[in-house]
Amino acid sequence: MNELELIDKIKKLLPQNESVIAGIGEDCAVIDFKNSDYWLLFKTDAIVEGIHFTSGTEPEKVGHKAIVRCLSDIAAMGGKPTSALITIGLPKDFSPEYVEGIYNGMSKVANRYSVVIVGGETTTNPERILISVAMLGIVEKDKCVFRSGTKPGDAIFVTGELGGSIEGKHLEFEPRIKEAQWLVNNFKPSAMIDLSDGLASDLRHITIEQGLGAELLASAIPISDSAKRRSRSNSSSKPALTAALTDGEDFELLFTINPKVAVDLLDKWKKTFPDLKLSCIGKVMDVVGFKIRTKNGIFDVTEYGYIHFA
Amino acid sequence: MNELELIDKIKKLLPQNESVIAGIGEDCAVIDFKNSDYWLLFKTDAIVEGIHFTSGTEPEKVGHKAIVRCLSDIAAMGGKPTSALITIGLPKDFSPEYVEGIYNGMSKVANRYSVVIVGGETTTNPERILISVAMLGIVEKDKCVFRSGTKPGDAIFVTGELGGSIEGKHLEFEPRIKEAQWLVNNFKPSAMIDLSDGLASDLRHITIEQGLGAELLASAIPISDSAKRRSRSNSSSKPALTAALTDGEDFELLFTINPKVAVDLLDKWKKTFPDLKLSCIGKVMDVVGFKIRTKNGIFDVTEYGYIHFA
Repeated sequence: MNELELIDKIKKLLPQNESVIAGIGEDCAVIDFKNSDYWLLFKTDAIVEGIHFTSGTEPEKVGHKAIVRCLSDIAAMGGKPTSALITIGLPKDFSPEYVEGIYNGMSKVANRYSVVIVGGETTTNPERILISVAMLGIVEKDKCVFRSGTKPGDAIFVTGELGGSIEGKHLEFEPRIKEAQWLVNNFKPSAMIDLSDGLASDLRHITIEQGLGAELLASAIPISDSAKRRSRSNSSSKPALTAALTDGEDFELLFTINPKVAVDLLDKWKKTFPDLKLSCIGKVMDVVGFKIRTKNGIFDVTEYGYIHFA
Repeated sequence: MNELELIDKIKKLLPQNESVIAGIGEDCAVIDFKNSDYWLLFKTDAIVEGIHFTSGTEPEKVGHKAIVRCLSDIAAMGGKPTSALITIGLPKDFSPEYVEGIYNGMSKVANRYSVVIVGGETTTNPERILISVAMLGIVEKDKCVFRSGTKPGDAIFVTGELGGSIEGKHLEFEPRIKEAQWLVNNFKPSAMIDLSDGLASDLRHITIEQGLGAELLASAIPISDSAKRRSRSNSSSKPALTAALTDGEDFELLFTINPKVAVDLLDKWKKTFPDLKLSCIGKVMDVVGFKIRTKNGIFDVTEYGYIHFA
């Protein structure tokens, strides 16, 4: 049984009720909390030493990463983060300076996004550091963006540049909170998600899983310098386009929107966020499946993001 | 640096703001969420294989324990639990049946207390299972009970029987949600806490840390049969009273209340909860410190719960 099969099994065991607007399968759980204007956003995310960071990673960056992963999910729903609880599992021989560095990193980025760390706990995890962040946010009901609103013909947009995050961005990225806030207030997307598993994987959640498809334009996909550099570094590396499609931890916003507003959106975006690229990379199709158009023809993209000849 | 020193250091690093009614140092964080009648309660708690349960523990009990620890904290604030996110760290070779058993245990107790499990994630923790539960609850503002309301002269009460939880109760206890609800609606305590670290330790939070003291009556302390049995089992075991004072994971309610209502409270409690003992075990003193009166005299109780001659 793999993790996805396990999650599928678990889903069927769990109780639901009417206060839950959205649960498993969204970036955050969305909860009706007896407030007429807002819903609550509720998210947890864990990072583990040796998997999401190494024992040599600067502690401030570890703390930063632990917090911003949750912030990225709050952003993708159109919400604002408010408060967090931190659970940290530590080996018995932990270094107090290292742990203090982690909290310094968390505190700095929490302050920047007005998130209050309201508590948490330390526990023992003998072999490695594990940090689990529980985050709350709020979202105006009419600004909340789900994964399920995509329509055939919608334009597909992505912020920033993709691929090669492992070279450093995965520890240092800024969550797209203010950009997402601007979007929901000015050009509300039909669906939105943050890129954590890679474009080819995450695009499925807002297209194929909704009974739709997508056609991407290879030349429009913004490839990061890291992905390009890595592809050139040796002959067994992924081609840069494949990296942009399949590398994880980009933490950019991927969204769909009515194509009629696409030009106006790109124009106003450039004026508002001159330092962050916004790219229209393709369109939503009414046939389930996922294709990419390159100068050599149209290719299928599999669920693992690899490209095969059609 | 020990864990308490670390927490103290961390506290100073963390940002605060006016939406936080209570943060570190309460059973749950209490958050003002733009609702005129309710506050939000927010709590996380983690359990780790080899520390809070063994690899031989029945998985349903592991799941039960993971959930009820958080519920016990929600109860101690006078709140009602609403929803939870589950983070589970698993070794690569996890047993799907075991993990399903854990979720079955969680699901069963969540249903019983009307808690919706709204999502979460699975991650890798190579050497052992780690489960972190993030729990939300609500509390009517005027029913919320903090640790800080104790007054000199207040009577000290505890539910159930104490000590020896390791024999099985720590995996099977029921959180005192309905008892706490009844209390805040009928005899609102001046302060309340759930017993997780042991009476001698947790009583400090609502007395000594508030600049007050306590005098306990040894003969009034309800000692569990497990604690008595363990103390008789061999000569190096803790005496049963010491076990009741210092064993962790009792998960009973400890509260203080105006002594004028004590008799009426005991009387009505017996009619409402005939199967759960409620004991008046002492009183709050206006001198910082912690003493216990036995048939042999009055003794000091140290912060680690051990009794020394005064």
